[in-house]
Amino acid sequence: MGEGERTWTALEALRERLTGTLARVGSAGEAALEAQVREALALVVACRSEAERWRGLLERFLDPAVLAHLLAADPPMVSGARQEVTVLFADLQGYSDLCERVPLEELTSVLGRYLAVALEAIRWEGRVVDRWIGDAVLGWFNAPGDLPDHLYRALRAAWRMQQALGALHPTLPPEGRRRLCIGLPTGEVWVGPVGTSDYWSYTVVGSVVNYARRLQEAAPPGQIMLSRAVFERLRDRIEARALPGFPVRGGSQVVPVYRFLGFREEGP
Amino acid sequence: MGEGERTWTALEALRERLTGTLARVGSAGEAALEAQVREALALVVACRSEAERWRGLLERFLDPAVLAHLLAADPPMVSGARQEVTVLFADLQGYSDLCERVPLEELTSVLGRYLAVALEAIRWEGRVVDRWIGDAVLGWFNAPGDLPDHLYRALRAAWRMQQALGALHPTLPPEGRRRLCIGLPTGEVWVGPVGTSDYWSYTVVGSVVNYARRLQEAAPPGQIMLSRAVFERLRDRIEARALPGFPVRGGSQVVPVYRFLGFREEGP
Repeated sequence: MGEGERTWTALEALRERLTGTLARVGSAGEAALEAQVREALALVVACRSEAERWRGLLERFLDPAVLAHLLAADPPMVSGARQEVTVLFADLQGYSDLCERVPLEELTSVLGRYLAVALEAIRWEGRVVDRWIGDAVLGWFNAPGDLPDHLYRALRAAWRMQQALGALHPTLPPEGRRRLCIGLPTGEVWVGPVGTSDYWSYTVVGSVVNYARRLQEAAPPGQIMLSRAVFERLRDRIEARALPGFPVRGGSQVVPVYRFLGFREEGP
Repeated sequence: MGEGERTWTALEALRERLTGTLARVGSAGEAALEAQVREALALVVACRSEAERWRGLLERFLDPAVLAHLLAADPPMVSGARQEVTVLFADLQGYSDLCERVPLEELTSVLGRYLAVALEAIRWEGRVVDRWIGDAVLGWFNAPGDLPDHLYRALRAAWRMQQALGALHPTLPPEGRRRLCIGLPTGEVWVGPVGTSDYWSYTVVGSVVNYARRLQEAAPPGQIMLSRAVFERLRDRIEARALPGFPVRGGSQVVPVYRFLGFREEGP
């Protein structure tokens, strides 16, 4: 239970005790105090309900892991840091085409169901889902806080996402049955608040994030493309096929990429 | 002053009055009540400070117009709706290349300064900045709430962004002196919460958003590309050059796009 929850619980208990005390008092000498205390109690209730609206909104907009990390700091602002993470970038096959074909209401509904599947899979592995723009979902593993075996967990989340999406298809209108294209690299990024001092995202920055997008663009629908570093570190535990890579901008080398085929260990 | 601010102000005033009353009382009969009231006051202060942390975080993560819109609803959840908006999609020229060239700390600092310029320009016109992924900034004009002349205001914000960015260049390291590529279409979108019932973005959805991205990709660095609808509706007030468009996916027509050249009226 966090500091915030303790404050609310204690406040509620005190409110009940004070209400009881007030029911028992009432002599002339205490009348002025009693009126003010009654007013205070009503205000405390209003304040609590207002604050809970704010808290409720925060929980809808910030990933739970990020929210806990920010509230643990006092003031709730954290500085960024370098950190090795595995990035998961997922995008819906033919989303532009879908936008042209279905009414806005249906589009929003289909998109919401895809996002629910993507979120569930990433959170099942206990990690952070960033915001999305359009149909692009960015998640990462190993910040804030260390996550042992983050490469494998990220890959398992990607695999789970593809499976869950397949299971969703029969419930979707035919033109909404799309697959995800997923890119999955690992490397050092900057993790922390990005933006201005009074308006920021808690997100990841660096060439690994761009590389995740390029891997995603190279992935056929329903597939997961791994960077060489991910493949090298998981090679004893997974099957994957090397494919010609693409030149890394600013670099002279063409590094291979890997299409994920399956887990060697008993499936997740 | 919103409902929330009124609650806090009233609470603070009452806290002062009660503290004064408590300083004057102290007879034996009031002792028990007094102790409880002192405890209540301490808790109210703790509750207020906790709630203000939450509110402070909300203000850092949600656009002020969106936050006000959400808090005006009770419960603070709103349904989406169709709405005509002008979308502004901005992206930093050669961002991937920049990522490869500079250390993460410098990258984050340069990115933060670009975002500050983009935000300031959009907010100066009083409109919503959505989240970003990497260097992509999505803003829109005319929701929540109507914004008269939203096409012209959106274009003025885009122009202002380009000007402000140019002014920023001398203060940036040479490899960080990039321009923005901006796409600016208008049309009907879905505006509202997108995602799952307990984790969502307040954002815009529809083919107009994809089209904004494609216009942005077609814009040379430092330029603003308009959709035909934007040009048609502003043609008496601006100068623009028609260029060959690109086929709209799912459609058979190739619609021209327009490169913005300048305002006819006295500059904004």
